[in-house]
Amino acid sequence: MVDNNKSKTIGVGLIGSGFMGKAHAVAFRTVGGIFPLNAQPRLEFLADRNAEVAAEAAHALGFSRSTGDWHELVCDPAIDVVAITTPNSQHAPMALEALANGKHVYCEKPLSTTLENALAMTEAAEAAGVVTLVGFNYQRNPMVHAVRQMIADGEIGDIIGFNGHYVAGFMGRREGSYSWRMHPDEAGGALADIGSHLISMSRFLLGDITDVIARLDTVYPTRSSPDGVEHPVDIDDQAAILARFRDRPFTAMLDVSWVATGREMGLAFEVTGSRGAIKFTQERLNEVQIFKRDQPANRSGFTTLTAGPAYPPYGAFCPGPGHQLGFNDLKIIEVKGLIDAITGVAPSPTPFADALKTARVMDAIHRASATGEWTAVER
Amino acid sequence: MVDNNKSKTIGVGLIGSGFMGKAHAVAFRTVGGIFPLNAQPRLEFLADRNAEVAAEAAHALGFSRSTGDWHELVCDPAIDVVAITTPNSQHAPMALEALANGKHVYCEKPLSTTLENALAMTEAAEAAGVVTLVGFNYQRNPMVHAVRQMIADGEIGDIIGFNGHYVAGFMGRREGSYSWRMHPDEAGGALADIGSHLISMSRFLLGDITDVIARLDTVYPTRSSPDGVEHPVDIDDQAAILARFRDRPFTAMLDVSWVATGREMGLAFEVTGSRGAIKFTQERLNEVQIFKRDQPANRSGFTTLTAGPAYPPYGAFCPGPGHQLGFNDLKIIEVKGLIDAITGVAPSPTPFADALKTARVMDAIHRASATGEWTAVER
Amino acid sequence: MVDNNKSKTIGVGLIGSGFMGKAHAVAFRTVGGIFPLNAQPRLEFLADRNAEVAAEAAHALGFSRSTGDWHELVCDPAIDVVAITTPNSQHAPMALEALANGKHVYCEKPLSTTLENALAMTEAAEAAGVVTLVGFNYQRNPMVHAVRQMIADGEIGDIIGFNGHYVAGFMGRREGSYSWRMHPDEAGGALADIGSHLISMSRFLLGDITDVIARLDTVYPTRSSPDGVEHPVDIDDQAAILARFRDRPFTAMLDVSWVATGREMGLAFEVTGSRGAIKFTQERLNEVQIFKRDQPANRSGFTTLTAGPAYPPYGAFCPGPGHQLGFNDLKIIEVKGLIDAITGVAPSPTPFADALKTARVMDAIHRASATGEWTAVER
Amino acid sequence: MVDNNKSKTIGVGLIGSGFMGKAHAVAFRTVGGIFPLNAQPRLEFLADRNAEVAAEAAHALGFSRSTGDWHELVCDPAIDVVAITTPNSQHAPMALEALANGKHVYCEKPLSTTLENALAMTEAAEAAGVVTLVGFNYQRNPMVHAVRQMIADGEIGDIIGFNGHYVAGFMGRREGSYSWRMHPDEAGGALADIGSHLISMSRFLLGDITDVIARLDTVYPTRSSPDGVEHPVDIDDQAAILARFRDRPFTAMLDVSWVATGREMGLAFEVTGSRGAIKFTQERLNEVQIFKRDQPANRSGFTTLTAGPAYPPYGAFCPGPGHQLGFNDLKIIEVKGLIDAITGVAPSPTPFADALKTARVMDAIHRASATGEWTAVER
Repeated sequence: MVDNNKSKTIGVGLIGSGFMGKAHAVAFRTVGGIFPLNAQPRLEFLADRNAEVAAEAAHALGFSRSTGDWHELVCDPAIDVVAITTPNSQHAPMALEALANGKHVYCEKPLSTTLENALAMTEAAEAAGVVTLVGFNYQRNPMVHAVRQMIADGEIGDIIGFNGHYVAGFMGRREGSYSWRMHPDEAGGALADIGSHLISMSRFLLGDITDVIARLDTVYPTRSSPDGVEHPVDIDDQAAILARFRDRPFTAMLDVSWVATGREMGLAFEVTGSRGAIKFTQERLNEVQIFKRDQPANRSGFTTLTAGPAYPPYGAFCPGPGHQLGFNDLKIIEVKGLIDAITGVAPSPTPFADALKTARVMDAIHRASATGEWTAVER
Repeated sequence: MVDNNKSKTIGVGLIGSGFMGKAHAVAFRTVGGIFPLNAQPRLEFLADRNAEVAAEAAHALGFSRSTGDWHELVCDPAIDVVAITTPNSQHAPMALEALANGKHVYCEKPLSTTLENALAMTEAAEAAGVVTLVGFNYQRNPMVHAVRQMIADGEIGDIIGFNGHYVAGFMGRREGSYSWRMHPDEAGGALADIGSHLISMSRFLLGDITDVIARLDTVYPTRSSPDGVEHPVDIDDQAAILARFRDRPFTAMLDVSWVATGREMGLAFEVTGSRGAIKFTQERLNEVQIFKRDQPANRSGFTTLTAGPAYPPYGAFCPGPGHQLGFNDLKIIEVKGLIDAITGVAPSPTPFADALKTARVMDAIHRASATGEWTAVER
Repeated sequence: MVDNNKSKTIGVGLIGSGFMGKAHAVAFRTVGGIFPLNAQPRLEFLADRNAEVAAEAAHALGFSRSTGDWHELVCDPAIDVVAITTPNSQHAPMALEALANGKHVYCEKPLSTTLENALAMTEAAEAAGVVTLVGFNYQRNPMVHAVRQMIADGEIGDIIGFNGHYVAGFMGRREGSYSWRMHPDEAGGALADIGSHLISMSRFLLGDITDVIARLDTVYPTRSSPDGVEHPVDIDDQAAILARFRDRPFTAMLDVSWVATGREMGLAFEVTGSRGAIKFTQERLNEVQIFKRDQPANRSGFTTLTAGPAYPPYGAFCPGPGHQLGFNDLKIIEVKGLIDAITGVAPSPTPFADALKTARVMDAIHRASATGEWTAVER
Repeated sequence: MVDNNKSKTIGVGLIGSGFMGKAHAVAFRTVGGIFPLNAQPRLEFLADRNAEVAAEAAHALGFSRSTGDWHELVCDPAIDVVAITTPNSQHAPMALEALANGKHVYCEKPLSTTLENALAMTEAAEAAGVVTLVGFNYQRNPMVHAVRQMIADGEIGDIIGFNGHYVAGFMGRREGSYSWRMHPDEAGGALADIGSHLISMSRFLLGDITDVIARLDTVYPTRSSPDGVEHPVDIDDQAAILARFRDRPFTAMLDVSWVATGREMGLAFEVTGSRGAIKFTQERLNEVQIFKRDQPANRSGFTTLTAGPAYPPYGAFCPGPGHQLGFNDLKIIEVKGLIDAITGVAPSPTPFADALKTARVMDAIHRASATGEWTAVER
């Protein structure tokens, strides 16, 4: 039975109420029913692009107060943690101001659209001495945690190969697809928007990336907006990347695409070790395929592991194996991690300093694509 | 954006705080953040087997009050709906008393362990004129709803075949597995415990079952309890069933097992039509396989449909296809259905009267197994 | 390296040159290149429905002589083994006359369309003291052999469940599908035509079937012939069967359909044991799924075994695992078995006496369907 | 019914009788039973490393004569076509001498271990005016042909992405694995040995590769031989490649590994188009996954196509869909292509001139890995 400390609460201020805003809100309101916590989140304040939208969202999602001006929220004394779910280019100003006010910051990925901002945010976070967490939620999956542990334990031997993918088709139609995501200052292309998940996941599993060669391609040099007007586009639709990890004897292959027709949630990887191999795809997030060489030849093959209580913290959601976690459950695990970090139970799983390293890799990929040369990642 | 009516609330009384109790609690606290509702659930009262357990659970799950005596709860004036998540044999007395007090009742499956009780509960519900809902949560899956609609629309032609399964291995070890589930008065065996899901699902998809022949097998005639003592067992571990549906030209095959080693959540079916076919398994609850004959021979095959906003109400959880719902999300959809029924938006998806029909099929299966003869289902 | 004895040959007489006739011919001409043999098959004589067809087929398939009268073939002194690939109703007269002439007989399945004939053929074979082999070629699959061995060795514990299927859609269109297969005297329906494979496979894996209850359904009571004329049909399109095996504590479920829209080669089974489970489908004939309980909970799941040299006699075809055998390769293995039986290396894998047991099960299924009662299989 | 011309034959001389030698022999002896041919292959002459081995192999595989000296074979007047299945470094001298004698040449892949030899062989073939065919047998798969046609027909729109793989684990053990394959002059590493299949397949599907950047890695810089002696190794175990195709707007990713633990036959690809996508793996050579955008959102997904008569020439092997072709069947289709080319029915599917283009790509990959720069493929 969980043992919640109801007397202590954490004031949550949420900026943005779209897809990820709602996911944050739901996670905050649900987490205390799933996990024992040292403090309960209190849905205190919601900011959105204007007062009316914010009021409606606060009502719908269960927040006590609302505002059309996020500056009010980030300095509000009742707020302990600021959750930022706005378009990517706004992450930096909001986070910096929240940090300046001594708030913990829970920021959606990517940390920022520029390396400069990512660096400034990380330095500000360190100066403030608060908890930061970037929403690389796919890393919260119990099965992915198990994979990381298998790798770290040498269960599949020395790692000798890695292929990573984030392929999805949500920007796959040229017609009618022109939007804010096409502005380099905003989403910044497929690499920034979804590639950051892949880079972060790869680092989570295998450690530092030191060198890259890559090519970013704009498959559709023009796109039309829903009103039929054509717009030139110069951000990347796809990225093809070769990468070297520190102290590892192989060249990894990473591919990113948001025009991958037919693929919906293709964050996936295959890890090869000298004594085994592992395969995973987010499209079946409750499964992992593992091969281990220490089997007789006629009993050897990939085994499908299925999420269940044997993979913590699955059991907090359901005692029965095979019942499956969903996307929103990963966000609940993430919020559990946030609260544990704030209450001193465990460090943040992905603080700004870690997301900065991911941003440095993405920066090197951009430079490698521009020069056509192998490029070192800044440390 | 959801438009919640915060001024109206529904007082929830939960009996039991185990696996399903927690699932109910989480669904009640989360549902308002996912869906617009005409009234918000208010986690008011929790009863459990003694006051101490109940108090701890109420604290953990977010209920305002608690009691060790469920009789207090079912007559409490602040309670609008009683949610029953206790062992199967307790469903009847609790539901009957709640109904006698004019409460809506949300009862876990199966409705009861005896047909007599199921009938009494249904009659009491009709007399009370309240909302009842039995927790056949797998039927809330958007993909299962889509399948039902495809069948009803004739999309795969006339239905000419059906195989249904609920195979799981959670009772698969003879040693140490003796428990309350082994008592005929409690879980009542594999058929009652999990087979009820399969019968209900089959009826949901294809309508009334009229005749059955079956054989129930006790694979392990003795089991030991965790303390090593051996106990005779005479409930069914498996059921093999042939069934006829009203006005359908085929014989369906249904199998149930809780000793199916290696299977974790094998509620699955294949439906064959004269112009197509459909396959589903709860082990991959976000997928459906569909074949349609109207394709050229060299472009013909089973297509994997993946859960997404095209299958309502998935979009309420996540705007991106392929991101996946989990087990707990199905319970949230169920609670949405409960509140919609209470607030007059839509009828209950599975009222007691419907669960009674499922109980009548199970009764016929038991009789058919005992006599070895084709047996008609009572109407 | 194979060590063929070229000095000894076996004279092959083939009756029929359709689908299976060609498969036989190809297997006979290829087998000596794949396997070492004590005698080489000599493609001597081919009979077909008239002299012209037979001559063309002999030319195409590589036979030395041909005839339009099979009676000539079965008594020809150059013939050692008669291979029968004609429609089912002709198996009995051809086999009986070949046996009367002291020939070995290699007969396609099913042995016959009536139990009486099957019995007569078996008695004649025993009287003749020759080698007989019935073409249940799916049992020649190295992966299926491995499964049988796993079961026999107790590798998955005591067997406590079995589901077997042969579902295919080749008779799934009502329009234009009326043919000789619709005559009870010929194919005899889905059960006789493809169900015999399933019954034989089930017996191969688990031993004798002792009792059955079943229902045969005619899904399309009329079918039209290609010329558009409607014909009444009274043979079975589907069979739903419960079966008991000798000395096994469970009820097996067997289903057969030749109107299973979308399924192409669905001979499949799942075997459950007290300590493991196995799944197989002919649609992926080079794979077997196996679960074994003796794994830690977080490393447990179904493992996909892939055909390779570790599963004899795969290595005779290819030294590399994963390269895959095809349908015709199973026939080559079968012909190897035939020649080994003729040359005294090993007994026939499926002599008439074994196929008779399969015929007895099918007879019991027919009677059980007619009476609606559990029916014992004759011994 | 096939219409073989038995009066015309083609004298076959086979050099080598290992894995591929046997596969050639079986294909030559079987092809006439499967396909109608304008001339029948005559298994005339077999050469191997000494007279004794050759004699045994000729006996086993059905060749009339044998020799320990391949020079005898390539000038023998009874030989029309020389089939070369020896280690890679011997391809060039054998082919050149056979061509000088005016023989058709059927050579296993890769064409040669050096670009110089590949060029010389191609020029000699053109000078001789004979038929040449390189054994890229995976391209003979009916399903791969269907994919190529879909791409060419624009069925999935403009091609905007390609990932290709050949990952296998047969050299995955460091201990005891040192062999002739480790010599740069022989197999020449993973890229030459299996990568040539991938490059050829990629070109078969998408046309010319113009530019590459790559990195070849030697994962195990030492390997021990079976006698336990350690040897330094400097050939590639893996290759990670980015490639540009002529007139295509994307960067393809190609990876090759022979140390891919657990993978057995991972020649696979995913093709993305603007209106669809296709996935294939040789591990399930009878299946292709295809997605097409022109479906409603709630009926959209990848469809599994299964090999059958709708994909010629599958029907020559078996009239039933789903029965599956095997590895050796692809070789039979290849030999059919060889005989058709020799008898003037159709051009060779992969003449030396085509294999030379593949060799040029491999050469560019080697140079790109050495320099770390994008490198143009010679034309």
